[in-house]
Amino acid sequence: MKRKVKILGTGSYVPKRIVNAQEIDVIIGKTEGWSEKKSGVKQRYFVEDETASYMGAEAAKSAIEDANISLSDLDCIISASGTNEQAIPCNAALIQKQLGLEGSGIPCFDFNSTCLSFVTALDMMSYAIDQRRFQHVLIVSSEISSVGLNWSQHESSILFGDGACAFILSHSNEASGIIASKMETYSEGAIFSEIRGGGTKIHPKNYSEQSANDFLFDMDGRAIFKLSYKKLPDFLEGLFNQTGLTVQDMQMVIPHQASKSAMNIIRKKLGVKEERFMSIIENYGNVIAASIPLAFHEAIRAGKLKRGDLILFLGTSAGLSIGGIILEY
Amino acid sequence: MKRKVKILGTGSYVPKRIVNAQEIDVIIGKTEGWSEKKSGVKQRYFVEDETASYMGAEAAKSAIEDANISLSDLDCIISASGTNEQAIPCNAALIQKQLGLEGSGIPCFDFNSTCLSFVTALDMMSYAIDQRRFQHVLIVSSEISSVGLNWSQHESSILFGDGACAFILSHSNEASGIIASKMETYSEGAIFSEIRGGGTKIHPKNYSEQSANDFLFDMDGRAIFKLSYKKLPDFLEGLFNQTGLTVQDMQMVIPHQASKSAMNIIRKKLGVKEERFMSIIENYGNVIAASIPLAFHEAIRAGKLKRGDLILFLGTSAGLSIGGIILEY
Repeated sequence: MKRKVKILGTGSYVPKRIVNAQEIDVIIGKTEGWSEKKSGVKQRYFVEDETASYMGAEAAKSAIEDANISLSDLDCIISASGTNEQAIPCNAALIQKQLGLEGSGIPCFDFNSTCLSFVTALDMMSYAIDQRRFQHVLIVSSEISSVGLNWSQHESSILFGDGACAFILSHSNEASGIIASKMETYSEGAIFSEIRGGGTKIHPKNYSEQSANDFLFDMDGRAIFKLSYKKLPDFLEGLFNQTGLTVQDMQMVIPHQASKSAMNIIRKKLGVKEERFMSIIENYGNVIAASIPLAFHEAIRAGKLKRGDLILFLGTSAGLSIGGIILEY
Repeated sequence: MKRKVKILGTGSYVPKRIVNAQEIDVIIGKTEGWSEKKSGVKQRYFVEDETASYMGAEAAKSAIEDANISLSDLDCIISASGTNEQAIPCNAALIQKQLGLEGSGIPCFDFNSTCLSFVTALDMMSYAIDQRRFQHVLIVSSEISSVGLNWSQHESSILFGDGACAFILSHSNEASGIIASKMETYSEGAIFSEIRGGGTKIHPKNYSEQSANDFLFDMDGRAIFKLSYKKLPDFLEGLFNQTGLTVQDMQMVIPHQASKSAMNIIRKKLGVKEERFMSIIENYGNVIAASIPLAFHEAIRAGKLKRGDLILFLGTSAGLSIGGIILEY
């Protein structure tokens, strides 16, 4: 049964500093054109002085304006990011503070399923909103990947960017809603994308020249793709079987912006034309959990989506997880 | 309306190593008896070789046995902890792997609201379970505080312990259910309990002798207590007003095991007798988000609770947040 939620507004923030493919080529010591050819990323943004909570709050303010509500209308603030600003407290509380809502009492907490964090938060919160626990929930994904990249691992370091995106997810008795959703986790692929350090297993106090790489992102792109590609057909069948719909009924597929080559293969596998498969990786890189909401936000801004359209959010994440949501916008 | 969920089973795991108050006195250079008098903690457990995912999986296995279901009956695995094993992937995926479910596809993700993570997960997942998205959800809190304590900050370091607790939360048409719940966050208190480092703001690569304390827990207990004590009456009124109940209808109050002195003041404020206010801090210390589920688990093991009893979960966390759930066991 469709969960009665509506994406009332969206907003984004990107850091001031644009980093183009040529700059990346220099960093990694390759000839000009190498990183763009390999990753499909023409440019991405890296933070200068911006913090995750600052970016998240800026994206949130835009989403609030877009939704035509006030800050005081919010009754829940959620951070749904693969990266955190600090170990304690949760990002959502830091975003609340940045929004000047420090005395409001609006509940704040975080979801984490790495690149799928936003999709998971949207999926799970739709039940609480449908049941009228909350009227207007702010879901923010604010990601700083640049600080944790391993520049000696070219395959991963050339892909990522920083940025934030926010949705206002609201209760609605209109046609809008989440029609179906599904998530699967195969931890046989847990080691395919990791930052092994930074938690209780390899605490920052163990940081040294020898352990430095444990605190940086480590990815085996080929293994991730192989496992997720194998699982995808059954996953999609399970997702669409909850509905009377097929992927051809989707006005737009909004995929996780993992890498251009992976996205191309998935698009062909789905049998979806380019104009119905939103790609922003060229201009933003992979912005971790902010990728899917940002691609959706850009599709709206570009006039590619209208109310009533059926949309598929589809992504993978460290875990390894696959997640999807079919919604009516 | 009561959400149709039932705590079908509970389980716990504590590390092999017991650390008594005398050992703590030696670590912090105080005379024997000082730390116990100050904190009320006679002993706590610290990990030796245990990881968070190992402890979480052990607690989960006990809960599954207690619930009389099989591993394969799980349809969602959630980690609800204030600490993480590693930065990527999420704890829940690592717990799935420890459980030997790496090929199962069971969805895995994390909630984080620091010490309230478990309460938040219970609260939010109750909507998805009530709406039949899931039948049996494993919620695990597995905490390793010992690695992040600042032994020069006596006020906080003498309080904490390590350990894990797990619930099987299941759909049920019986009387069991969540009757009411509430959460409030006041980020004016965000700086009262922090680990400033470890995220994107102060990345582990900035670790040095000078920055070392930024990677350890920093707490102003007096400020936390003052703010939460001020907010508590209105919070409780808002929580109980959703019901026809009062705190006197509760068979048992299960508070966050923040500190013995704070718990005593809260108990008196609530007007609840000692036998109806579960305290395990003497034997476990403050086990972060595992505190409330572990106190509940111990209350059941001690025969203090039976099906049909009304119970209040009540806690505070970094953020600063206050959270509460009224449920029928």
